[in-house]
Amino acid sequence: MSHATTPAIDGPAVPRAAIVRHRPLPFDAVRLDPGSFLGRWQSLNRDATIPHVLAQLEASGTIDNFRRLVGRSDAPAHRGFNFVDSDVYKTLEALAWEAGRVPDDQPWEGVTQELIELLAAVQRDDGYLHTLYAGDEVFADLRWGHELYVLGHLVQGAVARARTTGRTDLLDVARRFADLAVARFGEGGEDGYCGHPEVETALVELYRLTGEQSYLDLARRQVDLRGSGVLGSGPFPPAYHQDHAPVREVTEVTGHAVRQAYLAAGVADVVAETGDPELLAALLRLWDSAQGTSTYVTGGTGSRHKDEAFGDPFELPPDRAYAETCAAIATFQWAWRMLLLTGEGRFADEMERTLYNAIPASTSVAGTGFLYANPLQVRTGRDGSSEFAPSERLPWFACACCPPNLARLVASLQDYVATRDESGVQLHLYADADVSLGPVRLTVRTEYPWDGRVVLDAGPDGLHEDLSLRIPAWADVGAVRLVVDGRVQEVLVEDGYVRVAGPVHRVELELPMPVVAVAAHPRVDAVRGCVALRRGPVVYCVEQAGLPPGVVLEDVALVPGSPLSAAPPVAGVDALVSVEAVAVHRPASAVPLYRPSAAGIVATPAPEPVAQRLTLRAVPYHRWGSRGPGAMRVWLPVAERP
Amino acid sequence: MSHATTPAIDGPAVPRAAIVRHRPLPFDAVRLDPGSFLGRWQSLNRDATIPHVLAQLEASGTIDNFRRLVGRSDAPAHRGFNFVDSDVYKTLEALAWEAGRVPDDQPWEGVTQELIELLAAVQRDDGYLHTLYAGDEVFADLRWGHELYVLGHLVQGAVARARTTGRTDLLDVARRFADLAVARFGEGGEDGYCGHPEVETALVELYRLTGEQSYLDLARRQVDLRGSGVLGSGPFPPAYHQDHAPVREVTEVTGHAVRQAYLAAGVADVVAETGDPELLAALLRLWDSAQGTSTYVTGGTGSRHKDEAFGDPFELPPDRAYAETCAAIATFQWAWRMLLLTGEGRFADEMERTLYNAIPASTSVAGTGFLYANPLQVRTGRDGSSEFAPSERLPWFACACCPPNLARLVASLQDYVATRDESGVQLHLYADADVSLGPVRLTVRTEYPWDGRVVLDAGPDGLHEDLSLRIPAWADVGAVRLVVDGRVQEVLVEDGYVRVAGPVHRVELELPMPVVAVAAHPRVDAVRGCVALRRGPVVYCVEQAGLPPGVVLEDVALVPGSPLSAAPPVAGVDALVSVEAVAVHRPASAVPLYRPSAAGIVATPAPEPVAQRLTLRAVPYHRWGSRGPGAMRVWLPVAERP
Repeated sequence: MSHATTPAIDGPAVPRAAIVRHRPLPFDAVRLDPGSFLGRWQSLNRDATIPHVLAQLEASGTIDNFRRLVGRSDAPAHRGFNFVDSDVYKTLEALAWEAGRVPDDQPWEGVTQELIELLAAVQRDDGYLHTLYAGDEVFADLRWGHELYVLGHLVQGAVARARTTGRTDLLDVARRFADLAVARFGEGGEDGYCGHPEVETALVELYRLTGEQSYLDLARRQVDLRGSGVLGSGPFPPAYHQDHAPVREVTEVTGHAVRQAYLAAGVADVVAETGDPELLAALLRLWDSAQGTSTYVTGGTGSRHKDEAFGDPFELPPDRAYAETCAAIATFQWAWRMLLLTGEGRFADEMERTLYNAIPASTSVAGTGFLYANPLQVRTGRDGSSEFAPSERLPWFACACCPPNLARLVASLQDYVATRDESGVQLHLYADADVSLGPVRLTVRTEYPWDGRVVLDAGPDGLHEDLSLRIPAWADVGAVRLVVDGRVQEVLVEDGYVRVAGPVHRVELELPMPVVAVAAHPRVDAVRGCVALRRGPVVYCVEQAGLPPGVVLEDVALVPGSPLSAAPPVAGVDALVSVEAVAVHRPASAVPLYRPSAAGIVATPAPEPVAQRLTLRAVPYHRWGSRGPGAMRVWLPVAERP
Repeated sequence: MSHATTPAIDGPAVPRAAIVRHRPLPFDAVRLDPGSFLGRWQSLNRDATIPHVLAQLEASGTIDNFRRLVGRSDAPAHRGFNFVDSDVYKTLEALAWEAGRVPDDQPWEGVTQELIELLAAVQRDDGYLHTLYAGDEVFADLRWGHELYVLGHLVQGAVARARTTGRTDLLDVARRFADLAVARFGEGGEDGYCGHPEVETALVELYRLTGEQSYLDLARRQVDLRGSGVLGSGPFPPAYHQDHAPVREVTEVTGHAVRQAYLAAGVADVVAETGDPELLAALLRLWDSAQGTSTYVTGGTGSRHKDEAFGDPFELPPDRAYAETCAAIATFQWAWRMLLLTGEGRFADEMERTLYNAIPASTSVAGTGFLYANPLQVRTGRDGSSEFAPSERLPWFACACCPPNLARLVASLQDYVATRDESGVQLHLYADADVSLGPVRLTVRTEYPWDGRVVLDAGPDGLHEDLSLRIPAWADVGAVRLVVDGRVQEVLVEDGYVRVAGPVHRVELELPMPVVAVAAHPRVDAVRGCVALRRGPVVYCVEQAGLPPGVVLEDVALVPGSPLSAAPPVAGVDALVSVEAVAVHRPASAVPLYRPSAAGIVATPAPEPVAQRLTLRAVPYHRWGSRGPGAMRVWLPVAERP
């Protein structure tokens, strides 16, 4: 059975209106090769992460929270935070995407049906569904209650299941809860919105699936009301919840990073269905703010542990980077929606940056260990007793929002590879893949992200539409080589893409991947005098584990002007390409914490004598810690010139 | 009435045993000149801060918490945190020191007696005294209950009042509560200790005042038990409470900075009475850890907002410096006890550093605005809506531990100026002062900290003992000039002091105060490529308020090799000496957040063109914000050489 004859099913975020610039392909149009970076990740997710998450939902009592309400568990009390139901819903979403991705083998249909039956049993007659709140507590605390947030994840799981399997069992449950929310918070109802945005994007998706206008209206109403101060404050100010100003008026990202990005993704969905130009302008301001002042070089966001927040512009400490896994996932989702809206490659660039750095860094090679916060530096001797700064990836968390969020994203990765518009096809992410485009199967062959050569083959009949290929912002356009059906084509980049006019049979794209030293804006005080090493989209790090005996990571500095080069894989690190650089080791342990500079103002006073010159081997950041716990850093100091 | 005939009264921390190297002078032996830096601060404390604190204790309901328990207030509920009683006790301590410092004018004796009568009325028959806990809650939660912490402050207030006035009314209340603690937690009792150290130092003081051994025994027992894990964990690990290891075994400062320093001060008091060499060794390790890896250049400690904690070694971000005011006060108290124990000048150096930087920075020029956290950098456009990072000093806090802590410290400042040992007198802090030494009055004349010239005059009869003068570590010993009775004396520094053999009449000490650029240890990543400006003990900062129009603080960098000089006072800033440096302004707003360096590895790639060369005027850090809110920074980037 060829792909072309399979009935098309939808993936995440499929706009209904014709406003967007690009439209997603059907969910099953792209098949990632299991040997590719992204395809291996999907296999790991299926084989290891999802079973692990299901087991942890049991072990943590999260599913028992539902069972005890209908007498099927003797658990004495609710366990976990008040938003813990959403972990189940995100997992159901992951299972739904897996059912669509691998329709011939559905090992979790049984558990899915059991869970849905359980949810239906727990659900109140009026549609309300929550394992902690009852009676007067229902919708009583919009600031911290997370009830609409939980509803949002329930809806997303239901939409995914309906799209990939056609089954409406979960959808029935979700709609009853959503209808309750419409009755309570819709037009003419309470002027309330959730302290944690998420329901906005979910309601738009529910509208897309069902055609029911009231869901879109409620999403829009949630967006329009936000900023009126309904949420109050404490212990954090209104900006923590993005409640300090109306969405249309905001100029910069603020507060809790996941909340901010989920909100932006929901606003983008509203724009996709309404075309609201003011909201789009606000989204573009927010994007520029995040990208211009408040994103780590890995794509992570959120620089404060205390409130999981963006912090001030240019406040980007690598050691205390919070860079929550969920924030990177939320950025990815926001970026995808901006890409659909605008067609601009910078949004796909950001999807790529998070996909090869901030997001995979969260997961162990075995797929069953996770990071909640993703620092860009781990100091020698760090206290690893906090789950927000552990020495190693952990199997689960008191707040376990990240692992099931990973599961649902990775299970749907292939959906983000390509899009269409009226004139043709756009390729955004490069991976070994087969892409079904109506009657044509486009094969993509590449070793990306380890090699920038990408070969596309549309078969003997060729592709009779235009093909747009993303030229990443990290690439040196002058060095990019494009060969179309045997002829070199000039690389004219517009909005981040080079367009190849159809018909076309075979395209060879070469994106050179030299190792580059990346410097930060001078206002990023935390990494002054440092560079990060990047090759293609992959950011590298140096670990204590890779240093010779006696060399301490903190005392190593790169030699200015020395060469950088790609190098073979490093044992114990699951990555194809490492990176080499020349460094010096200057033991500094005997230096006092502060010392006057005898020479007056100098950038690097009284350097220690060089103890050792060495070749540093850097490994991909997303694989740090594979060789065990220890010091790590992305930003490497540059030694003064001799 | 001359000082010499006044009956001597004791100040804070007066060892009973003969173990310590130095002994404090009587509390009323030193009179600070009201025109001196420290003397003005004491006047401000008396005239503005203390009345303000008393008013805020009323306005915040803190005193009503007591009244409502005996039907004297109709406040419906307890207000504030569970340790809020301690704010009253710290204030009573401040009033007691004021009563001793200015015995001829005691405006607060009435309110003091009223408060003590109220406490006695609230106190239970068994001695327990707390405004929040009753019944089963009493001593039920040692980790977070703060009950022994509150007892500690009650005891300190009572000891101060007994020492300065001879009155035992408050002491009677405190002893009844302390006796309850002895019965419950003393030898043979419960193996418990408080999640927030403080009672240790208080119990030793109570022992010193009363001679009752059981108080010292309980203090020692609290220290010895600590680290057995009694406190458990959550949300923070045991190290937060210094409960991860026995005190005798610890090698570095950990966890909550105030808890750590209060604990260390209490341990030092135990050592002062017992001579325990293991505990002393542990204290010295802790001190070296704090000073060598975890203290800001201002003397502040605590680099994390989330848990108010030290963080990892060398984790010292200036923008997110927590540097809680109480932590600096606690460091001062710890340092004083280490000075008494060892006689080493490095401890007095640290008292001086906190006294001219971290501590006074917390208080507005008017004496009625305060900072809880004391950042070393405020960014342009910082969100000032958190009380932990406000735009301006605030009148009070939800957690108001700092203002009354300031009040009690400042009211007793003169006590820390000098000490004695068998052979003579040691001068630790320089300020215009009269020091009564038995029959001799030693006058000290200086403009310290703005000028390093100090003139001591023992009068016509002279001082017939040795006089040791501290030579601060910041001073260039080779440039220090010492003239004794008209003859230049060689400056031989031992343990931080130069000794002048008695008899002596007049000493002139000159500590040159050039402006110096201070560099940090290379492992302090957060300030790489920056220097701080210091003159004498005073650290300086540059503020947006002092820059020409169009110049943005973040875009300013010092010119390497250019001169630094002292300069006249700046309008609106309450400080005698400003500092000048040469800088360049390079507007960097158009630069992307990250950019590959075309030239490979370079420390400062592609610098922006210089827009302007300017003379920076830096003001004392402790007076930042005097000209209104705005950006500020202590650590100034150094421009690359042209």
